[in-house]
Amino acid sequence: MVGGGQGAFIGEVHRFASRLDGHYDLVAGALSASPDKAKASAEALNIGRAYTSYEEMAKAEAARPDGIEAVAIVTPNHVHAGPAIAFLEAGIHVICDKPLTATLDEAEALQAAVKRSKALFFLTHNYTGYPMVRQARELVESGALGKLRLVQVEYVQDWLTDPVERSGGNKQAEWRTDPARSGAGGSVGDIGTHAYNLAGFVSGLAVERLAADLDAFVEGRALDDNAHVLLRYQGGAKGMLWCSQVAPGNENGLKLRVFGDKGGLVWAQEDPNRLWFTPHGEATRLITRRGAAASAAADAVSRIPGGHPEGYLEGFANLYTGAALGIRAHQAGEPMPELARLVPGIEAGMAGMRFVGACVESSRRDAAWVSP
Amino acid sequence: MVGGGQGAFIGEVHRFASRLDGHYDLVAGALSASPDKAKASAEALNIGRAYTSYEEMAKAEAARPDGIEAVAIVTPNHVHAGPAIAFLEAGIHVICDKPLTATLDEAEALQAAVKRSKALFFLTHNYTGYPMVRQARELVESGALGKLRLVQVEYVQDWLTDPVERSGGNKQAEWRTDPARSGAGGSVGDIGTHAYNLAGFVSGLAVERLAADLDAFVEGRALDDNAHVLLRYQGGAKGMLWCSQVAPGNENGLKLRVFGDKGGLVWAQEDPNRLWFTPHGEATRLITRRGAAASAAADAVSRIPGGHPEGYLEGFANLYTGAALGIRAHQAGEPMPELARLVPGIEAGMAGMRFVGACVESSRRDAAWVSP
Amino acid sequence: MVGGGQGAFIGEVHRFASRLDGHYDLVAGALSASPDKAKASAEALNIGRAYTSYEEMAKAEAARPDGIEAVAIVTPNHVHAGPAIAFLEAGIHVICDKPLTATLDEAEALQAAVKRSKALFFLTHNYTGYPMVRQARELVESGALGKLRLVQVEYVQDWLTDPVERSGGNKQAEWRTDPARSGAGGSVGDIGTHAYNLAGFVSGLAVERLAADLDAFVEGRALDDNAHVLLRYQGGAKGMLWCSQVAPGNENGLKLRVFGDKGGLVWAQEDPNRLWFTPHGEATRLITRRGAAASAAADAVSRIPGGHPEGYLEGFANLYTGAALGIRAHQAGEPMPELARLVPGIEAGMAGMRFVGACVESSRRDAAWVSP
Amino acid sequence: MVGGGQGAFIGEVHRFASRLDGHYDLVAGALSASPDKAKASAEALNIGRAYTSYEEMAKAEAARPDGIEAVAIVTPNHVHAGPAIAFLEAGIHVICDKPLTATLDEAEALQAAVKRSKALFFLTHNYTGYPMVRQARELVESGALGKLRLVQVEYVQDWLTDPVERSGGNKQAEWRTDPARSGAGGSVGDIGTHAYNLAGFVSGLAVERLAADLDAFVEGRALDDNAHVLLRYQGGAKGMLWCSQVAPGNENGLKLRVFGDKGGLVWAQEDPNRLWFTPHGEATRLITRRGAAASAAADAVSRIPGGHPEGYLEGFANLYTGAALGIRAHQAGEPMPELARLVPGIEAGMAGMRFVGACVESSRRDAAWVSP
Repeated sequence: MVGGGQGAFIGEVHRFASRLDGHYDLVAGALSASPDKAKASAEALNIGRAYTSYEEMAKAEAARPDGIEAVAIVTPNHVHAGPAIAFLEAGIHVICDKPLTATLDEAEALQAAVKRSKALFFLTHNYTGYPMVRQARELVESGALGKLRLVQVEYVQDWLTDPVERSGGNKQAEWRTDPARSGAGGSVGDIGTHAYNLAGFVSGLAVERLAADLDAFVEGRALDDNAHVLLRYQGGAKGMLWCSQVAPGNENGLKLRVFGDKGGLVWAQEDPNRLWFTPHGEATRLITRRGAAASAAADAVSRIPGGHPEGYLEGFANLYTGAALGIRAHQAGEPMPELARLVPGIEAGMAGMRFVGACVESSRRDAAWVSP
Repeated sequence: MVGGGQGAFIGEVHRFASRLDGHYDLVAGALSASPDKAKASAEALNIGRAYTSYEEMAKAEAARPDGIEAVAIVTPNHVHAGPAIAFLEAGIHVICDKPLTATLDEAEALQAAVKRSKALFFLTHNYTGYPMVRQARELVESGALGKLRLVQVEYVQDWLTDPVERSGGNKQAEWRTDPARSGAGGSVGDIGTHAYNLAGFVSGLAVERLAADLDAFVEGRALDDNAHVLLRYQGGAKGMLWCSQVAPGNENGLKLRVFGDKGGLVWAQEDPNRLWFTPHGEATRLITRRGAAASAAADAVSRIPGGHPEGYLEGFANLYTGAALGIRAHQAGEPMPELARLVPGIEAGMAGMRFVGACVESSRRDAAWVSP
Repeated sequence: MVGGGQGAFIGEVHRFASRLDGHYDLVAGALSASPDKAKASAEALNIGRAYTSYEEMAKAEAARPDGIEAVAIVTPNHVHAGPAIAFLEAGIHVICDKPLTATLDEAEALQAAVKRSKALFFLTHNYTGYPMVRQARELVESGALGKLRLVQVEYVQDWLTDPVERSGGNKQAEWRTDPARSGAGGSVGDIGTHAYNLAGFVSGLAVERLAADLDAFVEGRALDDNAHVLLRYQGGAKGMLWCSQVAPGNENGLKLRVFGDKGGLVWAQEDPNRLWFTPHGEATRLITRRGAAASAAADAVSRIPGGHPEGYLEGFANLYTGAALGIRAHQAGEPMPELARLVPGIEAGMAGMRFVGACVESSRRDAAWVSP
Repeated sequence: MVGGGQGAFIGEVHRFASRLDGHYDLVAGALSASPDKAKASAEALNIGRAYTSYEEMAKAEAARPDGIEAVAIVTPNHVHAGPAIAFLEAGIHVICDKPLTATLDEAEALQAAVKRSKALFFLTHNYTGYPMVRQARELVESGALGKLRLVQVEYVQDWLTDPVERSGGNKQAEWRTDPARSGAGGSVGDIGTHAYNLAGFVSGLAVERLAADLDAFVEGRALDDNAHVLLRYQGGAKGMLWCSQVAPGNENGLKLRVFGDKGGLVWAQEDPNRLWFTPHGEATRLITRRGAAASAAADAVSRIPGGHPEGYLEGFANLYTGAALGIRAHQAGEPMPELARLVPGIEAGMAGMRFVGACVESSRRDAAWVSP
């Protein structure tokens, strides 16, 4: 693991997720840029091999006969490309947190490294791991919604309503509102990319043009904390994306609605075990995880019976397990299994970066239409 | 009543609403342009004085000592201005269905007539009549949400998913998709104006510019059946408005969310007795009609105890009662009471027309920013 | 109208309900036992013929050529039997609030009067008037749930959590907690009878035996404010009934769940336009009033399109309209129409009285099994 | 681990739960009574030390210097007491699935063994591990609800609606409906004990007497599949418990409502990150896990930020982690930490057994009052 030392948020999530299904052991880490913290964090986590830099770690692990097979990169955005490229070049598989990188240049360098390397690259757009999201995707693919017309997606939070990045005690807020560490997108990079990715994952559609109106409502904030985006998809569907970190009363409100000429569906992340499906002209169906109407795609990433809620960590773990299956197949020279192919990779990462770039450019040009 | 003959929808709603509180008797009507139907409808409704034209009705009623005090206009949009002007000129108060008219020219003529007339003019943007909407408005006004940043409003239906206007049996769909009768806006005129009005009513904010992307997803449909609109309010707040009539699984999904720097609120028309309010940094409160946290403004338009759902007709009736109180005060030479002042009037109607016009123009210009 | 003077609650509800569909004019009333109040109330309501006693009113109205056709009795329970019998004997149809009477003796006298009279008797167990309750009943009757096994019903409020009957300002609480005016049942008579009636209306089942545990949690309260009841239905189904007026956070929580060997349904009064139906082994369906899966029985008592909430007054009005149709048919010598037959009558009233009696007796005998 | 071989359900849950926080390694197991299956299961799970009997395992592990510190017992009920006693006698800590045992005799033998042993005993009434359940308990303890009056608890499923135990392919249904393996309680033992435990955990109240009406609705089923229970608590509170496995449309519907003279709360297992709290006379609060109003007790068993749903496995893992902390403290000779003390133990298990016994006895005596 690179990053995820004391005080981090997403590193801990990756550790939980990797542990859940028993496919991973965490044996080595460069958990912090600070040597002391790196050491202390490794000890606290019982990690035997503690490094002080990812370059060193990549080299040393590649050289060991029992070196790591895969690395998780859970640093702030501006420290994604460096370690990812280093490990890929060392032949070590990479599981990287989103968004792909802080800048498009870094993203392109990383993309090139992925192409050059035999190692695999996975990107944790974790919301795609929820069973009912898998079923939603399958429903669309099956034609149950008919020809798609509308994709409405939103991701709404409230934790940046106040200028907490200046309170002195909120590391998460600090780097996520800092262009040097986050890149050009604030909310649009942090959560907008998740929403965008989810909409594409379920709908199977690609955005042709978008028009974005970005705001930093908190005075002095350098990055957007709210984004309103109009979407035009290839093939004629339209959509809206709203992401916000300044909407009081919202914790992690990711919600997707997709409508076609034969039906519609609704899924909300805070109630993840349920999927609402309406065949046009019939009663709405409440489809539940492992319930009577759950599909094989949902079942394949479920662990326990219906009515026993699976949550965020389970969905996240589904990506880790998909990656593990992919790595095993790769090692065995076998084709990628379905669960590995469903894990977002470099293309999804590039799409996210182009989305952020297009939003920022569009907003600068007064919400002009821009192709991502 | 003008319009509202057999087969009509909104005429019946107006009759229910006017009857509920006992302030109105329906004694005269020009219920249909067809003489036979006008007569038959009047008989079916026990209306004594049946007219075959609104001009005739306005004249005759104005001349009678027991002539009507007020008239309800419940015709398709293109027959709003004519009768409204005729009755206003006859000194008879007008309660008119929304949107104001089919065209901006008609709207301006009507506005002039309102200015000239001593009679009152009310417009039934009925969703403003819900008790919890009144409380939402009051919460914003009180400063409980702080300075407003975001207004997200949507009005989503599915009844035009198929080309039902060509099925031969759906009068409502026929005129609502016909530019000659509806005006330039389809969904945007029919329901978008409601959403726009509600957002303004609660937030107290005026839109400075908007950018709209309108679609007619059903082939051959002459008016939009879906609209995606970005909003920029005076003072810096931003918003999104989505209205659709082609989103399967949605019946009458009008929903408003308003966020400021101190709190947020959510209200949904299909669950109208509840208002969700979050003071930033505290638990969300569920405020119910006539519940422990209901306010005076909500109480003033409630009829029965909390937990006994009041619905659409009750909300609609609140406008009728507000209008009745206004008419009584007017007759007595007294100032307009609060409940009358809260009923939308000609200004709200003009704002709605400018909204439709701006949306259509913006969409024609590829979602350019337009001032409504 | 008998009762319903100033300060009353249910009288106003009856007036709204009678007015909504235009079948009734309120022209005469004995609104209060106090002559002054009776007069003042009548004036405030624009009621021309104000009486000071119901006996006088029954006689006088029966004697007039334009006398009332029907009377609404909206007094406290101990003043149901007297006026009901008087009007029935005068040949005037009676619409009476629930529960039937305060005592079983009164109930039997009233039952005898109904049998003797040619006039009709209706009892406003109003929750049976909700469209989705009608559809629930129809679903059970159709066999969609299979053989019934379980009936779970509850009616939960919180307005008597404190001893508000001793606050000096709460007329409703005063008489409803007073055995002399309410009868032997407190919560069990006031709301338990509604729950019991609703369960029977939808399930079509009759209770064979019940075991009840009644409590007055507020010190010094003379009647129960909470009741826990086990139900055994004829044919083997079982059930539970819970009613409470001391459960903070509950306003008017009437909820019914019915399960058979082929399916289950759930309906809740505070969300009345929705009915949840699960065919065993399939996804749960959300059936909405006038939605795609609404039935003819629900449609027959609906006024406006799906998604436009109808509420408590509309459901209540459905009984008034059913009674009006019944009265018209009766006058014309025609058979009772379906909508009139669905209005609860004297049998439902007697069943409610036996239920209250059985609960009180069972509770006195330490929750022994008692046949109602 | 004892039990939990191929085809088992709860064994897998224990494995997930033990793995999540990294406190356990699964190194030895007697996974099945069948030697072949025990071996195959151990191999599939990468468990090094596979035993064919729990007696052997207890002996061997106790003898090894690197023997297990704790064992999870995840067998059907009739194989709880045997292994639990064997491991306790070998000085190995026991984490045992619920209910405690199949018979009261076994339970008493186990209780004696717990008293004799220095090893610790934990019982996985896992629903007590949910963060919002911890906060609910804390709210009651703090007096925020005042003096408790009502405890309403239900646990409703539908998976035994049909006689699936005779279908030949449902191991879970087979043993859970078999008195020889389950004990005297069917639904009441399997899920009723959970509901009973949860009610006691949150309310802090002990049941004085209960009256139960048990049914086996499916013909030929030897154990109850539905139970209706009246509860009388020490101190005067009353309650109802309903558990069912034959209610179509219910997956795992455990729901608890507690009401006192100052407030009420509601929690439902299928929406576990939310707790509804109403201070009497105020608006209902929606308290969310790690949200603005979350308490220290909830926070202590939370892993990730609010809005990121934690589910069943996380709640279950909280007991495993509590047990691990308890074992560590025990080894260090330190007092039990709070999180360990909150894990149900032998007393909770005995209470559950007495509850099942009392329900069965009461039901046999026609729902007579019985002290558990």
